Amino acid sequence: MLSTKETSFTAVIVGGNGAGLSAASKIKRLRPSARVLVFEKGPHVSYANCGIPFWLAADISENALILLSPDTLRQKRGIDVFTRHEVMAIDRKAGAVQVRHCETLREFEVAYDRLLIATGASPRLPSWAIPEAQNLFSLRDLTDGQALQQALTSDARKVAVIGGGYLGLEMAMVFRRRGHDVVLLERALRILPTFHSKISERAEQYLRQQDIAVITGAQPDAPTYDGPRLRSLRLLPDYREIQADVFFLAAGITPNVDLARASGLQLGPTGAIAVDDTLRASDAQIFAAGDCIEVRHRLTGEPVWLPFGPAANKQGRIAGANMAGERQRYAGALGTSAVTIGELEVARTGLTFSEAERHFGSVESVVVQAHDIAGYMPGEKRATVVLIFRRRDGRLLGAEMAGFHGIGKRIDVLATALQAGMDVRQLAELDLSYSPTIAPVWDPILIAANAAVKKLSK
Amino acid sequence: MLSTKETSFTAVIVGGNGAGLSAASKIKRLRPSARVLVFEKGPHVSYANCGIPFWLAADISENALILLSPDTLRQKRGIDVFTRHEVMAIDRKAGAVQVRHCETLREFEVAYDRLLIATGASPRLPSWAIPEAQNLFSLRDLTDGQALQQALTSDARKVAVIGGGYLGLEMAMVFRRRGHDVVLLERALRILPTFHSKISERAEQYLRQQDIAVITGAQPDAPTYDGPRLRSLRLLPDYREIQADVFFLAAGITPNVDLARASGLQLGPTGAIAVDDTLRASDAQIFAAGDCIEVRHRLTGEPVWLPFGPAANKQGRIAGANMAGERQRYAGALGTSAVTIGELEVARTGLTFSEAERHFGSVESVVVQAHDIAGYMPGEKRATVVLIFRRRDGRLLGAEMAGFHGIGKRIDVLATALQAGMDVRQLAELDLSYSPTIAPVWDPILIAANAAVKKLSK
Repeated sequence: MLSTKETSFTAVIVGGNGAGLSAASKIKRLRPSARVLVFEKGPHVSYANCGIPFWLAADISENALILLSPDTLRQKRGIDVFTRHEVMAIDRKAGAVQVRHCETLREFEVAYDRLLIATGASPRLPSWAIPEAQNLFSLRDLTDGQALQQALTSDARKVAVIGGGYLGLEMAMVFRRRGHDVVLLERALRILPTFHSKISERAEQYLRQQDIAVITGAQPDAPTYDGPRLRSLRLLPDYREIQADVFFLAAGITPNVDLARASGLQLGPTGAIAVDDTLRASDAQIFAAGDCIEVRHRLTGEPVWLPFGPAANKQGRIAGANMAGERQRYAGALGTSAVTIGELEVARTGLTFSEAERHFGSVESVVVQAHDIAGYMPGEKRATVVLIFRRRDGRLLGAEMAGFHGIGKRIDVLATALQAGMDVRQLAELDLSYSPTIAPVWDPILIAANAAVKKLSK
Repeated sequence: MLSTKETSFTAVIVGGNGAGLSAASKIKRLRPSARVLVFEKGPHVSYANCGIPFWLAADISENALILLSPDTLRQKRGIDVFTRHEVMAIDRKAGAVQVRHCETLREFEVAYDRLLIATGASPRLPSWAIPEAQNLFSLRDLTDGQALQQALTSDARKVAVIGGGYLGLEMAMVFRRRGHDVVLLERALRILPTFHSKISERAEQYLRQQDIAVITGAQPDAPTYDGPRLRSLRLLPDYREIQADVFFLAAGITPNVDLARASGLQLGPTGAIAVDDTLRASDAQIFAAGDCIEVRHRLTGEPVWLPFGPAANKQGRIAGANMAGERQRYAGALGTSAVTIGELEVARTGLTFSEAERHFGSVESVVVQAHDIAGYMPGEKRATVVLIFRRRDGRLLGAEMAGFHGIGKRIDVLATALQAGMDVRQLAELDLSYSPTIAPVWDPILIAANAAVKKLSK
């Protein structure tokens, strides 16, 4: 490890949210004398982007989203934060970045000893979409959220949500809670198409109960415009026309790799930046972390792109430690994730059924519906549990859950079991907690595990 | 396995709740032609005894507690249930039990091929307590609950709860919610004395916030009576006098082993019935399950008495399968448990600090207070997480949690990690779910694991 007394060490970080600021804070903790410069293209740093839907739903104020201001970062943590500054190019030979101030367009060069690319991801734009359309929105950063907040006036009667994944479902509920008419469009034959069909059905049923229209197997095409505003979309295959006042795009995201690619850094098979297990990119002085990188899947060992918040923060911390001279390893991810759709929680960990088949051969699954708390308690609901496991030996490969009462957190038991390499018999032996308000005597996970053991023994 | 066509097979089960009825149902499922006779001393079978506090708190009706009536058990499951019938003796040589009807006192003999002892546990009576006192209650079965329900009139202004464990804390809140003045007495210097002191403090603080008086280091002694009613207790060491209208005894429970002992069956070092891992007692034809047996601790391999509902149900199922001719193994328990005290949840799994020291030598612990959901979300509270781990290699040995929002269920992650033999470094690598309504980006368990890793590396 380099001496902490050395004052000339400079770390430059591209991107001022989860991964970037976790790294910056870690570097300053380990090497207080280091210069740490963070360049953020947008006007905000250190805000809770996953909290934006809750601001839009009026659950929290906009202020609550701001975690640390640039001033606080500077004064309390000694991190030099530059918003509205875009890193245009990396001169790897010289060890310097070219930075442009987004308003003055003034450019300058900054030398680095270590560089972190934490450029995140951006919404994917379908071929029919014109980004300039005034009433077409997506949601990735606070600026997107502010634009949406302004557009969601009482004049905006109808909102069309394009995409039936996590963000689309979450935002459909937000729009509905604000009193808009909401239609959700999904190209696949069901929403949450990578989940088990029972989970998709459950989510769709929940949306319909909230008076959200759901159209599946619907491929948007042929937009019509009214001046600068998108007026309608025709849906293939039946040319049904969907008009709306606001269109919300939630058709996936894509890693921001332009800077890395232009600098000659290696991208991986997923299209995201390739890194080793210390999160070093294909240049000894350059690290990358967060939604712009691909990581090793803990079950398959293969590179995967799993852009989720906890991983980004964890990666930022590890990259920061390594930039400061430590040697920490990122163990890879399982793809554990959760979404809250109103009160319905949907979560998963590990592989989908088809991923499991591709990597592990003959695979089985079970689905159970079981009490989430004691059946006699008020507010009891059903939890849906899906387990995906190898036919040969019952090894757990993936799990999905849907339900209420924090069921999205109960997936963590299965994430832990996956990391430990448990099989469904071991799962059935788990000694889980019980109290009538928090679980039935037979936890839904145990009921699913018992069903899996039974299926294996057939 | 015996032929399912054989009709002469008779299973006799002593005790008609969790363990007993789980076994009975399992036997009938595996061997539909078997005669399955269940003898229950009390007037009720198949009721949710953990639900009784919620009936007393008026959260649910008394009817909701009844899971299956004797008629349903007979008609739907083919189980012959006899309430108010006490098994007085076992004639192991003859393979028969002596049964007495509790009202008529008529006795008869029933031959068995396999016998299950599922006699449960009973409240422990302190030396000063006279069980006949009309206003002294405890809570183990529905009859106890009914007696308490009748006694809790508006005349009963003050309730003294004796014992600061799970039941005492849970019931103190029930009495308070019913509008009584409540004082909780605990002999040890803090409530929940086997937990980390930070968990005890948190629970005590919560009780005081609910206007429940808590007196610790208080040993009841010298009761005074007013005819058949207990009037007051003097507390050692300072002879403070506590008067109350209702006294509630929650000073622990003890396994019901009289029948087993009188039959010459072996008891274990804990005082509960000794069984092998198929739950067979020291007689080839006799099994035992539930709160009356001791089991192997999964971490230490030693016999322990862990009388919790999920284990009793699981053991009943396994004993039933084995009585029906299968050979299933009970893997032992970790002692995972939880209690709900109003809205506060407290849970644990694995060993206490001192148990861990006794079995594993040099042990460390960490305590963290962390956001239970995203810090900016309404209703965010602090979760307290305690990890107990081996100094040498960081192996996890025990964990405790306290908090709100289903924190009592989040202990299951640590129960799973314990079963898998994880160390705190592996714990810190867990890929846990995240959504602002259900967790912060850094789950409290990860924050605790990071603190433990840091402590280890010192």
